[in-house]
Amino acid sequence: MSIKLYELAGKDTSRPFSPHCWKARMALAHKQLEYETVPVGFTEVPDIENGGQGIVPVIRHGERVIADSFQIALHLREAYPDRDGHLFQGEGSIALSRFIEAWSNSQLHPWIIKWAALDIHNMLNETDQAYFRESREKRFGVTLEAFVEGREERAGQLQQLLAPIRLMLKHQPYLGGTQPMFADYIPFGALQWLRICSGLAMWDKDDPVRDWFERLLDLHDGVGRSVPEAQ
Amino acid sequence: MSIKLYELAGKDTSRPFSPHCWKARMALAHKQLEYETVPVGFTEVPDIENGGQGIVPVIRHGERVIADSFQIALHLREAYPDRDGHLFQGEGSIALSRFIEAWSNSQLHPWIIKWAALDIHNMLNETDQAYFRESREKRFGVTLEAFVEGREERAGQLQQLLAPIRLMLKHQPYLGGTQPMFADYIPFGALQWLRICSGLAMWDKDDPVRDWFERLLDLHDGVGRSVPEAQ
Repeated sequence: MSIKLYELAGKDTSRPFSPHCWKARMALAHKQLEYETVPVGFTEVPDIENGGQGIVPVIRHGERVIADSFQIALHLREAYPDRDGHLFQGEGSIALSRFIEAWSNSQLHPWIIKWAALDIHNMLNETDQAYFRESREKRFGVTLEAFVEGREERAGQLQQLLAPIRLMLKHQPYLGGTQPMFADYIPFGALQWLRICSGLAMWDKDDPVRDWFERLLDLHDGVGRSVPEAQ
Repeated sequence: MSIKLYELAGKDTSRPFSPHCWKARMALAHKQLEYETVPVGFTEVPDIENGGQGIVPVIRHGERVIADSFQIALHLREAYPDRDGHLFQGEGSIALSRFIEAWSNSQLHPWIIKWAALDIHNMLNETDQAYFRESREKRFGVTLEAFVEGREERAGQLQQLLAPIRLMLKHQPYLGGTQPMFADYIPFGALQWLRICSGLAMWDKDDPVRDWFERLLDLHDGVGRSVPEAQ
């Protein structure tokens, strides 16, 4: 029984870009599960599976409909406990993955959206562009153009924000230790969002964190690499 | 057989202040182990247990001498696997705790040392003051006085740096989930360092992260609270 994954996409439906949807896709690939992806626009999210979710990603797995990447990962852990590849290793890892999620959401996401907001807008279809511009300009208090202005001056901050991963890599190749776990896919999702929407020209190619990211792009038959970087 | 814990201290040996030593002390208390503490000054560190460690904390446990708070926690896990209170829960938790350590060291420590450097200096005995001033002024490239200058203007940054814990607390009361784990003691150690050297007047009393910190001060018969806050 194949799993259905609803992912956020723009005009080009072959370029799903949401950080949270990438976490879910990597979790499915990690468990070596069959899945089909369904691209949805921002304004279609409320109608997924007859509505009621309000966020992406959403999966349909048999009778179950589950939203939120972390909930999806927990569901896959429960549904496939014996399957190769652990997304978590014990209750403690689940709890600590919540910290990783909080770190990524509070440290990486604000910088990325301030870099990529206009690029995201330009990827969307017309209806979604209008929705995205209105909702985000209300949230940010300025136009999208003003919001990302001077972003090149902020380029170096990305390296600083990634310092915790860089320091950790002196001990081990993945957040999960010798092998990636769901915790790796959390900051991976954030950086993949940046890669697909804006490209990674601002990121030093010699950064060891970039090596870690490239290793994750290679995983699971290169599922992350299947969507090319924005040029 | 009691464990001996070598901890960094200043003129007042009842006020051990090192973040790393507090991680080790909390780990010992977590395992409900008997231990005696041995205060050492900065310049005495090279001579602990006949030398060779170079860093604190150090524990002497029977025939073993172990330095580094993380190594000490791993040792206690191995030596007392059945003892109540898990410092980690599985290999995955060990790996993710390395990320927490890297986050704390790279995000909290630089801000704290830039706040507390002169206060730390003033706590030390004369020999250690000379060592600390020379080594730190060389590292920072300015006098200790210049290094901490204008610190009040940076007060609000602490709240921002703690955002990952704040966001995580919406899901669970501890980094370890429903119970504290070694991962909690890592940022706890950093904030305890600040509390003992400089006090916490700059930290908003309504911050939920502060509630978490106060809960940790209460743990294990209030071992963290046994050293009063700097006034």
